[in-house]
Amino acid sequence: MPASQHQNPKSDIEISQAAVKRPILDVAKERLGIAAENLDPYGHYKAKVSMDYVKSLKDKKNGKLILVTAISPTPAGEGKTTTTVGLTDALNHIGKKAMLCLREPSLGPSFGMKGGAAGGGYAQVIPMEDINLHFTGDFHAITSAHNLLSALIDNHIYWGNALGIDSRRVAWRRVIDMNDRALREIVCSLGGVANGYPREAGFDITVASEVMAIFCLAKDLDDLKERLGNIIVAYTRDRKPIRAKDLNANGAMTALLKEAIAPNLVQTLEGTPAFIHGGPFANIAHGCNSVVATTTALKLADYVVTEAGFGADLGAEKFIDIKCRKAGIAPDCVVVVATIRALKMHGGVKKEDLKKEDLKALEAGMSNLKRHIENIQKFGLPAVVSINRFSADTDAEIALVKDKCKSLGVEALMADHWAMGGEGAADVAKAVVKVIDEKKGALQPLYPDDMPLFEKVRTIAKEIYRADDATADKSVKDQLKAWEDMGFGKLPVCIAKTQYSFSTNPDAKGAPTGFNIPVREVRLSAGAEFIVAICGEIMTMPGLPKVPSADSIDVNAEGKIVGLF
Amino acid sequence: MPASQHQNPKSDIEISQAAVKRPILDVAKERLGIAAENLDPYGHYKAKVSMDYVKSLKDKKNGKLILVTAISPTPAGEGKTTTTVGLTDALNHIGKKAMLCLREPSLGPSFGMKGGAAGGGYAQVIPMEDINLHFTGDFHAITSAHNLLSALIDNHIYWGNALGIDSRRVAWRRVIDMNDRALREIVCSLGGVANGYPREAGFDITVASEVMAIFCLAKDLDDLKERLGNIIVAYTRDRKPIRAKDLNANGAMTALLKEAIAPNLVQTLEGTPAFIHGGPFANIAHGCNSVVATTTALKLADYVVTEAGFGADLGAEKFIDIKCRKAGIAPDCVVVVATIRALKMHGGVKKEDLKKEDLKALEAGMSNLKRHIENIQKFGLPAVVSINRFSADTDAEIALVKDKCKSLGVEALMADHWAMGGEGAADVAKAVVKVIDEKKGALQPLYPDDMPLFEKVRTIAKEIYRADDATADKSVKDQLKAWEDMGFGKLPVCIAKTQYSFSTNPDAKGAPTGFNIPVREVRLSAGAEFIVAICGEIMTMPGLPKVPSADSIDVNAEGKIVGLF
Repeated sequence: MPASQHQNPKSDIEISQAAVKRPILDVAKERLGIAAENLDPYGHYKAKVSMDYVKSLKDKKNGKLILVTAISPTPAGEGKTTTTVGLTDALNHIGKKAMLCLREPSLGPSFGMKGGAAGGGYAQVIPMEDINLHFTGDFHAITSAHNLLSALIDNHIYWGNALGIDSRRVAWRRVIDMNDRALREIVCSLGGVANGYPREAGFDITVASEVMAIFCLAKDLDDLKERLGNIIVAYTRDRKPIRAKDLNANGAMTALLKEAIAPNLVQTLEGTPAFIHGGPFANIAHGCNSVVATTTALKLADYVVTEAGFGADLGAEKFIDIKCRKAGIAPDCVVVVATIRALKMHGGVKKEDLKKEDLKALEAGMSNLKRHIENIQKFGLPAVVSINRFSADTDAEIALVKDKCKSLGVEALMADHWAMGGEGAADVAKAVVKVIDEKKGALQPLYPDDMPLFEKVRTIAKEIYRADDATADKSVKDQLKAWEDMGFGKLPVCIAKTQYSFSTNPDAKGAPTGFNIPVREVRLSAGAEFIVAICGEIMTMPGLPKVPSADSIDVNAEGKIVGLF
Repeated sequence: MPASQHQNPKSDIEISQAAVKRPILDVAKERLGIAAENLDPYGHYKAKVSMDYVKSLKDKKNGKLILVTAISPTPAGEGKTTTTVGLTDALNHIGKKAMLCLREPSLGPSFGMKGGAAGGGYAQVIPMEDINLHFTGDFHAITSAHNLLSALIDNHIYWGNALGIDSRRVAWRRVIDMNDRALREIVCSLGGVANGYPREAGFDITVASEVMAIFCLAKDLDDLKERLGNIIVAYTRDRKPIRAKDLNANGAMTALLKEAIAPNLVQTLEGTPAFIHGGPFANIAHGCNSVVATTTALKLADYVVTEAGFGADLGAEKFIDIKCRKAGIAPDCVVVVATIRALKMHGGVKKEDLKKEDLKALEAGMSNLKRHIENIQKFGLPAVVSINRFSADTDAEIALVKDKCKSLGVEALMADHWAMGGEGAADVAKAVVKVIDEKKGALQPLYPDDMPLFEKVRTIAKEIYRADDATADKSVKDQLKAWEDMGFGKLPVCIAKTQYSFSTNPDAKGAPTGFNIPVREVRLSAGAEFIVAICGEIMTMPGLPKVPSADSIDVNAEGKIVGLF
């Protein structure tokens, strides 16, 4: 959320640095009952919860799970992370025992354009500069584990290639936690005999690594090791898959991830405990925090608030059809975040005109929110709409949104946690608790495990995106068929498409109809255990803008970091 | 040191894992008087000492500095790190207040061939698996800072190249903390307009980064930022240097290194406090731990033991002529480590025959030790020789070494800390204390700041290596002259050559004579502030062996790391 939202004179980092932080060991003890010996501190304000302690919680009753998702994103900004933080603070504010689970931010965007991912205003997790920079080193561990596998592949080829890897069919790239377009496509192993066999290769950003997806879906260290072993890294000349375990790589990769897999505990500005753990792409992966963190949080709090990436068509669908399916969990309530500004953009208003009242455009833009609400209801889940308040919102606009939601059987409430902290989202919190108490939820995944793979894609396209159909070339369908024959037919599918529209056209705002979803390519994530269906341009390595954030990030004379936002 | 040294049934990692570790906050408080609020814990057994606390020590008196170095290394192994740990434990054992400073190990070799760098047997720093894997994340921070600069360079060219960088003259490569020969030489920015301008590039291992050298030489965060800004990253078509500060990169790089610069505190198996901080290549950089750690340790203990990379010709020379010169410190005593096995190899014995007594070969091999001792004496420093005991050492062999050293005015003592811990090196500790009490040391750097650059190289070649001369093509000499004209004439030189011989021929063991030192190439490290003179093959990115350590590293059913050594 931009610092200009309320003309607040303080930036996010200034609010974060000015906060009176409580020692994390105290937060853990008083708020969650976790003793110091079950925590590995990282400085005084971050800690990892030991995996032995995580295991010891196994038989405890689960709390309620609240999923925060959003309308299709617009340049106006919706504030999903901010709502996740604010709502959890609000639940505590109204006397409930709540905690939240977020994804870890990537270093790449921190030095590029987007900025951090620790919430904003008075709804932040702290210390934001640590969280946005190296945090507890999880992403570095994932980067190392990924690149160790990459090095072992080329090393195997170099030393005689006993497994018969076809160097043209190496499917495993390298990763770096940096926006670096120069590394997207490279030729490696140049320079002669000592450096191996030249071949085309490239780097993705770390959040796009299958190791990241596995890290976030693994139940524990054993599961992690097994999944890492199943990664398909290359194919032989006759198309036989070579797995990480064929290279004996998964043991060493697991050693590199042994500490990282324990969930990271921090706090909000109001001292609410927060897990921030894992951060897979919401595109070619499922885009939500780790299963270990979420399932642990459910043992520790009565209400657990978490978010999924992008809009509900992508993030919530994957949360339900991939994460919940794998982890055996289910949301008790879904909160859909919107802003009146963003809804007006979906109704055709330009960014520069957003401050003017425009009921007609707002009503048109409500079509986007409406479709997302209907989709949540298709999953059998109750929804609450949370509208992040902006000073330009008029009473008439607010009334319009509330009425329209009411007609869909859903309550919409205004939230102002950005300026007020948890108190500002108390109405949303009360509505969420009410919905959960009514126990209306009974999760129905969209498709059964044994539906054929292309039918799964088609089901998502038709039911969630409202496309006429999903289309694909014969080669794509043949590939899916081949994977079914190899025993991968029961995997869920992970759709990679633009987040800006229900369709594959990012400019088609609102609730488009009369389109097809073309599947251009499919990929098998055999370790993460899903099939990726790529529908449109997918960028797995961002570039830096002309004037990147790095240009203004600095350490000032008092040794404080400035310019990070 | 190999686990087979004494037929000890326990491997290094088993000894480390079986150790009763004391909480690092207790070690810090009881042994160094550092309160918990001045430490940032990383788990219960590692901590960073806050830079504010470091600053507060400024006016305290310095303890005595002991430099551990060695004869020219052989495949027999000398045990320099083990001696550094054992000697410090021994100093505490005889009632002194001592601590040690080591370099951080690189992940690359941990998964390759060499194994870790935390000592061995009963002279180890713990927890060795943490220290050998991610530790406190310093190397990851250095990798990120380095690669951010790399990304900013290509991004600058991509967006119009306002500075006029000649893309053929980009001097800044990328780094990764991995042995990955496939990345040595690459072509990047392939794939069309969106990915930039294709050019030749490559990766070094992180320890070879100039950021690592700067990190280890910087006095504090301000000095770090200034040096980072001075890095020359590229040249324009008319050879004008472009610096990191021209890209506005040094602020963001400093933000990434803000936590890393604080020294890491751990303990030995005997509870002796140890700083492990920084780990620059001992080849194209100075090869010793950070100035911040060493100068802080000198404020905290009466005796500080530290080591320099490779043999004394390279490691000790750079320690004195680069690190001491820059940091204004001086060793009070130098300990030269040797083994009778290694000395016999210098005398021509093959590895398989090392267990047989061979006084003639030992006497011949003593020429190597003798020359190193003389070199230490040239620096005006007193030396003590510490011989790591092996079971095959005979009384006659031991007597020969002791007598020969005595004739050089130096005491040689047997040390068995590997099997016995500090007690095993008590004689060495007593000899070191005696030498320091006699105050014989008065450091004389080998050359003054204002000696011309090539004369500095020549002085090291003749005085330390005992070459007839240093030679170089006109182009090399012209380059040095050009740097002198640009104001870099006062920098020290850092010689990169084989560590296995005084000459540039790694097979010339013992004390070769009648050779020249050919300078093939010179490089300017304008941020680290030294000139690198490359004399021979320099590998800045290692490869993995046919069966790398990664093959056997694993996490066992109890969740313990195995196979790391």
